[in-house]
Amino acid sequence: MKEFELIQRLTRSLPLNSSVVIGSGDDCAVLDFGLSDRVLLFKTDAVVEGIHFLASDAPEDIGRKSLGRCLSDIAAMAGTPTAALITLALPTNFEPEFLDRIYQGISSLARQFEVAVVGGEVTTNPERLLISVSLLGWVGRGKAVLRSGARPADAVFVTGELGGSRAQKHFRFEPRVREAQWLAQHFSIHAMIDLSDGLAGDLPHLLEAGGVGAELLASAIPISKEARRAAKTSSAAKTPLLAALTDGEDFELLFTVASRDAVALLDGWKERFPRVRLSCIGKITPNPGIVIRDKQGIRELTVHGYEHFA
Amino acid sequence: MKEFELIQRLTRSLPLNSSVVIGSGDDCAVLDFGLSDRVLLFKTDAVVEGIHFLASDAPEDIGRKSLGRCLSDIAAMAGTPTAALITLALPTNFEPEFLDRIYQGISSLARQFEVAVVGGEVTTNPERLLISVSLLGWVGRGKAVLRSGARPADAVFVTGELGGSRAQKHFRFEPRVREAQWLAQHFSIHAMIDLSDGLAGDLPHLLEAGGVGAELLASAIPISKEARRAAKTSSAAKTPLLAALTDGEDFELLFTVASRDAVALLDGWKERFPRVRLSCIGKITPNPGIVIRDKQGIRELTVHGYEHFA
Repeated sequence: MKEFELIQRLTRSLPLNSSVVIGSGDDCAVLDFGLSDRVLLFKTDAVVEGIHFLASDAPEDIGRKSLGRCLSDIAAMAGTPTAALITLALPTNFEPEFLDRIYQGISSLARQFEVAVVGGEVTTNPERLLISVSLLGWVGRGKAVLRSGARPADAVFVTGELGGSRAQKHFRFEPRVREAQWLAQHFSIHAMIDLSDGLAGDLPHLLEAGGVGAELLASAIPISKEARRAAKTSSAAKTPLLAALTDGEDFELLFTVASRDAVALLDGWKERFPRVRLSCIGKITPNPGIVIRDKQGIRELTVHGYEHFA
Repeated sequence: MKEFELIQRLTRSLPLNSSVVIGSGDDCAVLDFGLSDRVLLFKTDAVVEGIHFLASDAPEDIGRKSLGRCLSDIAAMAGTPTAALITLALPTNFEPEFLDRIYQGISSLARQFEVAVVGGEVTTNPERLLISVSLLGWVGRGKAVLRSGARPADAVFVTGELGGSRAQKHFRFEPRVREAQWLAQHFSIHAMIDLSDGLAGDLPHLLEAGGVGAELLASAIPISKEARRAAKTSSAAKTPLLAALTDGEDFELLFTVASRDAVALLDGWKERFPRVRLSCIGKITPNPGIVIRDKQGIRELTVHGYEHFA
């Protein structure tokens, strides 16, 4: 059973109360605690040794990634992160210096985004390190950008470059918190999600939430240098396009706006974030599913259809 | 290195911001998000297979305990729990039914305390199940009961009965949320903590936070039937008093009030919570450390001194 289906199954009949604006199913939960101008964002995310990092990775990188992933989820709602709790589940016989360095990675990124680290817990997980981060933030009332909300003919945008992130970027990515805030302040962003499972993995969540589909332009998808480099290493490697679609761990933003806003958005972005690439990669369609247009015509991208792009 | 020292080491120089009323070091973090009448409580806690439960335990019990521990921490601040996120780190080849039953245990307790479960995450921890719960709550502004605040001559109270909780109570305990709210509404509670590591493990945290000590009366410490029963099983077993002091996992409240309030508090409690035992177990002293008075006189309880009570 896939994670997404499993979560859907588990969350079908969860208890709710009057504080819940949005429960499970978006990048963060949205809670109303009675503030006149704001709602709260609440998110948790875990990284596990051997899955999200290796025991041989730099502890600072591991720490940075554990918080960065949560920051990226707050960004995907156009929110402001505020306070984090850190749960460290540690193998036996760890070195205190190793932990200090994990916390250095967490604290350094937290300072960059003015996030308070207000405590946490140390427990034991004998076979491998696991770090779970819980993050609290806020967004203006009515200003949270949801996964739902994409409309037919919307332009589809993605920040940064995709693919090959496992080589280094999954430790070095910049959570797009400020970019998302700027976007939501200046434009009516219809729908947004952060890319953790790759464009082919996460775009379907946004489309399903909106009851729409998408047509992408292959040549417009921003492929990272790393994905191009990896494609050259062996004939068995993914093509650069397939890597950009499926590698995952990019932690870029995917969002849609009315097509009439697309040019002004691109112009404003270039001025405000000259170093961060922004690409219009296609448009929203009324029919569900994803199609990709390239020189050879239009092909359907199905969940199990990545091999078509190999 | 003990967990407590390790956390102190890690949290020495954490980033803070203007939202932080209390960071690490109390039962929950306290955050000010600008609500006129309330502050937020933020807590995370994890349970790990082989440490906090066994693979053979009922999944409903495991789920219930994972949330219950966090509820107990919100109770220890006299707060109201509101919304939880659940992180499940699962061994490979789990049964979906097993997960459903974990969620039943969580949801059932959540409903009892009107807590919303607003999502979470499923990830992989190949060797053992780990559940991390993140809980958000609130308490009236200026009404959070902290670990610090105990004053010399205060009466020291404990709810319920202590010891032997590992047999069954660690799955069945009732988080003292309503009891704590009632206490804080009707009395000036000077300091409070929940007992997860045993009276001998947690009382020192409360005393150190207040810069005080305590004198306990051995005969007043409420020893559970289970602790008495266990003491009879073998001559090598802990004495009932030692079990009550050190077994842990009781999830009862330990708190102090001015001695002049002690009788009224006991009377009011008996009327309001006739089924929950409340015991005055001693008093706060100006000098640090814990002494226990019994028929043989006064003995010091040191962190490594439990054997004196064996």
